[in-house]
Amino acid sequence: MHCGIKHRSPDLGAIAFAAPVPWAGVFTQNAAAAAPVQWCRARAGRPARAIVVNSGNANACTGPDGDKAVSEVVSEAAGRLGCSEEEVLMASTGPIGVPLPTGPIIDSIPQLFDGLEEDVEGFARSIMTTDTKIKVAEARAGDAVVRGVAKGAAMIAPNMATMLAFLVTDATASSESLSDVLGPAVDRSFNRISIDGCESTNDSVFLFSTGVASCSDEELGSAVAAVCADLAEQIVRDAEGGTKLMRIHVSGAHDERHAADLGRAVAYSDLWRAAVHGEDPNWGRVVSAMGAADRSLNLGDVRVSIGGVDVFVGGTPAAFIDAAAEAMWGYEIEVNCAVGEGPGEATFLCPDLSEEYVTLNAEVST
Amino acid sequence: MHCGIKHRSPDLGAIAFAAPVPWAGVFTQNAAAAAPVQWCRARAGRPARAIVVNSGNANACTGPDGDKAVSEVVSEAAGRLGCSEEEVLMASTGPIGVPLPTGPIIDSIPQLFDGLEEDVEGFARSIMTTDTKIKVAEARAGDAVVRGVAKGAAMIAPNMATMLAFLVTDATASSESLSDVLGPAVDRSFNRISIDGCESTNDSVFLFSTGVASCSDEELGSAVAAVCADLAEQIVRDAEGGTKLMRIHVSGAHDERHAADLGRAVAYSDLWRAAVHGEDPNWGRVVSAMGAADRSLNLGDVRVSIGGVDVFVGGTPAAFIDAAAEAMWGYEIEVNCAVGEGPGEATFLCPDLSEEYVTLNAEVST
Repeated sequence: MHCGIKHRSPDLGAIAFAAPVPWAGVFTQNAAAAAPVQWCRARAGRPARAIVVNSGNANACTGPDGDKAVSEVVSEAAGRLGCSEEEVLMASTGPIGVPLPTGPIIDSIPQLFDGLEEDVEGFARSIMTTDTKIKVAEARAGDAVVRGVAKGAAMIAPNMATMLAFLVTDATASSESLSDVLGPAVDRSFNRISIDGCESTNDSVFLFSTGVASCSDEELGSAVAAVCADLAEQIVRDAEGGTKLMRIHVSGAHDERHAADLGRAVAYSDLWRAAVHGEDPNWGRVVSAMGAADRSLNLGDVRVSIGGVDVFVGGTPAAFIDAAAEAMWGYEIEVNCAVGEGPGEATFLCPDLSEEYVTLNAEVST
Repeated sequence: MHCGIKHRSPDLGAIAFAAPVPWAGVFTQNAAAAAPVQWCRARAGRPARAIVVNSGNANACTGPDGDKAVSEVVSEAAGRLGCSEEEVLMASTGPIGVPLPTGPIIDSIPQLFDGLEEDVEGFARSIMTTDTKIKVAEARAGDAVVRGVAKGAAMIAPNMATMLAFLVTDATASSESLSDVLGPAVDRSFNRISIDGCESTNDSVFLFSTGVASCSDEELGSAVAAVCADLAEQIVRDAEGGTKLMRIHVSGAHDERHAADLGRAVAYSDLWRAAVHGEDPNWGRVVSAMGAADRSLNLGDVRVSIGGVDVFVGGTPAAFIDAAAEAMWGYEIEVNCAVGEGPGEATFLCPDLSEEYVTLNAEVST
């Protein structure tokens, strides 16, 4: 619904359960974590009855007033639901450093909870900031279903505090097993995308389970992983200013972490991302980014290909790169970096770096 | 002089001494360090008679052919100078991954060394890539003089491999004491500027001394530091696409390294740099960048000011930021971040992030 934080578009949503349910969350590690993030983090492990989500304001870097705003909102919601405020969570997204106006939210709480229905797309719309598309995903886990919703034009929306994702499953699971499946799933999805390397104050991923359907831990794990990966890719596809999707696959690394570090370095390179925007297979920027991230990388073991075309093999440039240049024309660009004989591999997703990204993020907001 | 690596502009220069002199060097730590960097690194501690420098080609990621190219050039130069090839150094800057054409360089060696004169500006011009201005600086150290030349539109020139700097002094000093003064000077100058966080394969800073004038170690140290700082700032002022110079000063940190880490995080933030381009005092991006770099930062201890105007004090936004918005209008933007009561401080320089940066780096080069 629209409560009035934003000028016109939907800015308030909620997920509520008939009774308290187990949940797990993964949150930003930023020291400037927003007030709602700190509220939720402190309630990890306890069952939750509902989560209230607003867009249009991050409630981050807002000091004690920010904490007070969360208190007021969850207390109002708890009153309406007839539960303890400890059972109500909150998430916010929007500009950092602006006091959260609680009036419009509190006034809207009755309407918000009275009007609750299973409207996944409506919820997805209420949490959008500069997203141009709603982001929903679903996967089966045995008899259960995992359904997810996310927002984020990645880290890049003007003033916006990045990504939120909410997963709900009807699988029977404790908060510990939810936590066990969510951690690795987030690590291999939301933690393997980058728009600009800027970590936000509000990043949060929630997984709730209503516990009516049965499935194995493996089934739940892979369904949660699939939904996270699907939503993460949708975020990169909707990246502000993004005109291409890069899939950077690193293999042959010491271990998965090493592979992810190298992939992240390539995804973080403004130079390489600008080259991709210009459809230039300028692979020196890929090798240079990996060489800066791992001082002990042995170039003789490195093979880089773009769109399946080798451009750098065993420390030496491949002779012809016209075919690689052609591979840069499409929307999706595959960059494969084999760096040795190790078992570690990881895939990173990121967009190109366009003039539009800069324009959007240079717009005066204050 | 022009030897033919580039289409028309100067692309070859040299510094030669009447006899071998002590020198010190600081080099990129990139695992993809260029062939000439590897050559010089292996000769640290031994006296040098000359250094040959080319622009238009980085000779990086070029495999064994790259090493062979260095050998051929230094051997030709040694023959001309009548010295051992071990006494000849080399530095290169330009596109990565393109075989270095040694023919034009070798053919030009006689003319290069026969025509040597004290032409600091001519040398500065021969090492330019996409620099728009030559970069020279000078400082006195007792009876001695330290003179420096650098190239670099920072890390950002299309395909270019970043910065080179050459300092020459007539001070009497061993290679060890040159090394002792150069390390900290580089650390506080060239290592405290950033355009895009992309570390190159060719970054090198050389300091040679001809040993005729006398000065104390302190005098030499501060002169070398002054020349490095001056050249580093010239690089940021000539940053491609840069329309503003940001001076990020972090104080109250645990120690200097902690301060530099926080300053670097702000200088690396594409979001903040884009905001500066748009003259938007969007300080949430500064706090968020520091919070991502130091998970244990206590926001209650943080005070951020822009152009002397407080925008965030003790974990809470300052009420009015119109004055801060005005401070964004100039070419130079001062960002002061006090993060506690510690003794650590550091200053980082960087440009804003403009659409032109992207355009320049998206231009197809291959």
